[in-house]
Amino acid sequence: MQENNWDILITGGTLLTLSAGMEIIEDSFIGIKEDVIVAVGQNKDRESAAFQAKETIDAYGCIVMPGLVNTLTHLPMVCFRGMADDLPLMRWLNDYIFPAEARFVNKKMVYDGATLAMAEMILSGTTTFCDGYFFEDAIAQALSTAGMRAVVSQGFADFIMPDKPGFEKAMASAQRFVARWQSHTPMITPAYFCHSPYTCSPATLVRVKEDAREAGILYLTHLLENKDETNTILNRYGKRPVRHLLELGVLDEQTVAVHCNWLSKEDIAVFADLGVKVSHNPESSMKLAAGIAPVPEMLQSGIIVGIGTDGCASNNDLDMFREMDTTAKVHKVTSLDPTVMKAETVCQMATVGGAKVLGLDKLIGSIETGKKADIILVDMNQPHLTPLYNCYSQLVYAARGADVKTSIINGRVVMKDRQLRTIDLHAAMKNVRAVAADIIARCAG
Amino acid sequence: MQENNWDILITGGTLLTLSAGMEIIEDSFIGIKEDVIVAVGQNKDRESAAFQAKETIDAYGCIVMPGLVNTLTHLPMVCFRGMADDLPLMRWLNDYIFPAEARFVNKKMVYDGATLAMAEMILSGTTTFCDGYFFEDAIAQALSTAGMRAVVSQGFADFIMPDKPGFEKAMASAQRFVARWQSHTPMITPAYFCHSPYTCSPATLVRVKEDAREAGILYLTHLLENKDETNTILNRYGKRPVRHLLELGVLDEQTVAVHCNWLSKEDIAVFADLGVKVSHNPESSMKLAAGIAPVPEMLQSGIIVGIGTDGCASNNDLDMFREMDTTAKVHKVTSLDPTVMKAETVCQMATVGGAKVLGLDKLIGSIETGKKADIILVDMNQPHLTPLYNCYSQLVYAARGADVKTSIINGRVVMKDRQLRTIDLHAAMKNVRAVAADIIARCAG
Repeated sequence: MQENNWDILITGGTLLTLSAGMEIIEDSFIGIKEDVIVAVGQNKDRESAAFQAKETIDAYGCIVMPGLVNTLTHLPMVCFRGMADDLPLMRWLNDYIFPAEARFVNKKMVYDGATLAMAEMILSGTTTFCDGYFFEDAIAQALSTAGMRAVVSQGFADFIMPDKPGFEKAMASAQRFVARWQSHTPMITPAYFCHSPYTCSPATLVRVKEDAREAGILYLTHLLENKDETNTILNRYGKRPVRHLLELGVLDEQTVAVHCNWLSKEDIAVFADLGVKVSHNPESSMKLAAGIAPVPEMLQSGIIVGIGTDGCASNNDLDMFREMDTTAKVHKVTSLDPTVMKAETVCQMATVGGAKVLGLDKLIGSIETGKKADIILVDMNQPHLTPLYNCYSQLVYAARGADVKTSIINGRVVMKDRQLRTIDLHAAMKNVRAVAADIIARCAG
Repeated sequence: MQENNWDILITGGTLLTLSAGMEIIEDSFIGIKEDVIVAVGQNKDRESAAFQAKETIDAYGCIVMPGLVNTLTHLPMVCFRGMADDLPLMRWLNDYIFPAEARFVNKKMVYDGATLAMAEMILSGTTTFCDGYFFEDAIAQALSTAGMRAVVSQGFADFIMPDKPGFEKAMASAQRFVARWQSHTPMITPAYFCHSPYTCSPATLVRVKEDAREAGILYLTHLLENKDETNTILNRYGKRPVRHLLELGVLDEQTVAVHCNWLSKEDIAVFADLGVKVSHNPESSMKLAAGIAPVPEMLQSGIIVGIGTDGCASNNDLDMFREMDTTAKVHKVTSLDPTVMKAETVCQMATVGGAKVLGLDKLIGSIETGKKADIILVDMNQPHLTPLYNCYSQLVYAARGADVKTSIINGRVVMKDRQLRTIDLHAAMKNVRAVAADIIARCAG
């Protein structure tokens, strides 16, 4: 095993591999060399007692598991956290969020917001996320500093694009964005995000998808978030949203549909048939009263579903532990069946499921030899996590982001004992407070 | 103001009073003498600069607010946390919880479980709770040590009572329990808890209520948690549950109905008319797929509704911040109306609303001169709580139990800077792990 060459040894924790066999290893060890997991096993089987890893992390009393994958964020929206709550979705979007974005979104706001959001994510166990917003260059830059892994998607919408004037310019800029960051794979994976079928014309939807296919990148879109969307698209195009997208030819295995709260049985069959992936954001959809996606039915049809928090203006946090809890509970009560969405299933969705949604499952999502070292330690030595009968239950129903003790992304320790190593937390909070102060001052004026 | 005589001065925080006028005071101060709040205001109006309170607590960067009131717990059930999840309610109760209670519940288990649960509650901002279980003497003893405030109710059920053999003995023991603890009011308020109309005969329900009336104490019962309950009671007694209780004469202002997921419009009218209070436990009811209570309708009818976590076997934590978040969100999506259950309303339910449910609102639930000093400080200087536009939104949608920095109950600092002052946390966890180890060993054997 050549332990002398390991950069990091994690030892003594209960390891949830989240591999296909869902192995759980007590008193485990993980060897990491550079960015890769090179050894996984039980301490009693470890060959050398006299190993010399450069850094040894004691995981006694911790659950060791893959870092969480947040399949939908709009990071800079942390700047709008709590700005306008308890409002109808369309009023929230049209009277508050879109105007605020048109007025206040700029490169610096995006960088500052993304940096704070990444601090929050690392502190709550997320190691990989998928973001869709404007000025994604700034997000990619913030990412490099923070050392997180992400799919970063440049947004398209016909009527609101604070960073670009017209479609052709937007497309050209997006192509440059992809070219610029594609070499940073697998830390930064560029993608395209068409806001929705109701904000993007068929021409935009098709053209962006063609370009995504050519570049071999993911294509995301919000879909059927709100009940009204069916009527809007039906009135405009004479067909229901999924049929509309199907006929435009934009649905395939590289398409991620976000929300899908009002997906019909036929829609589910179409998605399952074409391999379309889904990002499920229950807390955002509950808070906006948008609807509850038929996730148990999707999973039963074989659709790959990941979990996401959505932006902070509609959640209002980025805590994937909280999102797992809600994911498990909301579908039980909606279906009046407590056996759906078991804790184990939800843990899979938040790790390897999310990795599959983002097309990154060959690299991350489970702890296995050869995979990238994206690993978190959850400190179970706490009153609300005592006693411990079942690790999955505990993680989903009782743990919270603040219980994550240490986080490793791509073999780099980005947080240890709750201290961030890559982000200046004080500065990150100060910068976002300045953005908010500006919003308050100018909106009052 | 005689600041020289204050025992505690809390200074510099943003104070949410939760009083009738919902005043918010920036750069606030609170003076506490013994167990009582003797002064509240803004620092600039504070008379003497040279005060000499015995202990000064710097609340800069914190929200200062009344401690949270958890209107339903079954504390010793922390010992069953995560033992049996993702199961149908009746199977969960009949195959796991009731047998485990019959076999493992004893005085020591109750004391140890309650102590750990109180540690968890203090660490997550709860200062008052209402418990219903067996061996409530042991809970009252644990309470005295922990320094929490509670309504402690002795449970009645015709078929499961591990602590007592027959009804008359149970009643006599409960009367002694009340006599023993009634003098400890307002820290410990005894009450009676009839498990439910389907586990208690009409005779039990009536006799316990008569006794509660005589003693002037609260009377609680689980009601309409599950959809089937209506049919069960209809088949047994020829009437629906609320009608059944109404005709038995057990519904009045001193009755708290727990869950009420399947309350009809007529039931709501009955409750509003008679002043029956409700304890709403959304996370437990979601996890057990029991149902979603019509809380917006109850509030509109003037029913007083508090929030509770229920026991740890069905939640699986005691974090009232998480419960507030879920309370706000689940009713929005159920009604498809994001304007119901506003953050401010939910904060009221979790503080002064809960105090009203428990009949303690003259003493606690808001921060006003003359009230008991039950106060928590929430540390807002954190990434997931930045920026801050609206305190109520932030508390409900983004804060979590771990953000509570300091807690004062009845004028006593029970936690400071997240360090418990009244409970040995290490011992509390160790004791409950021993209970769980015993359960695992004996259930495997």
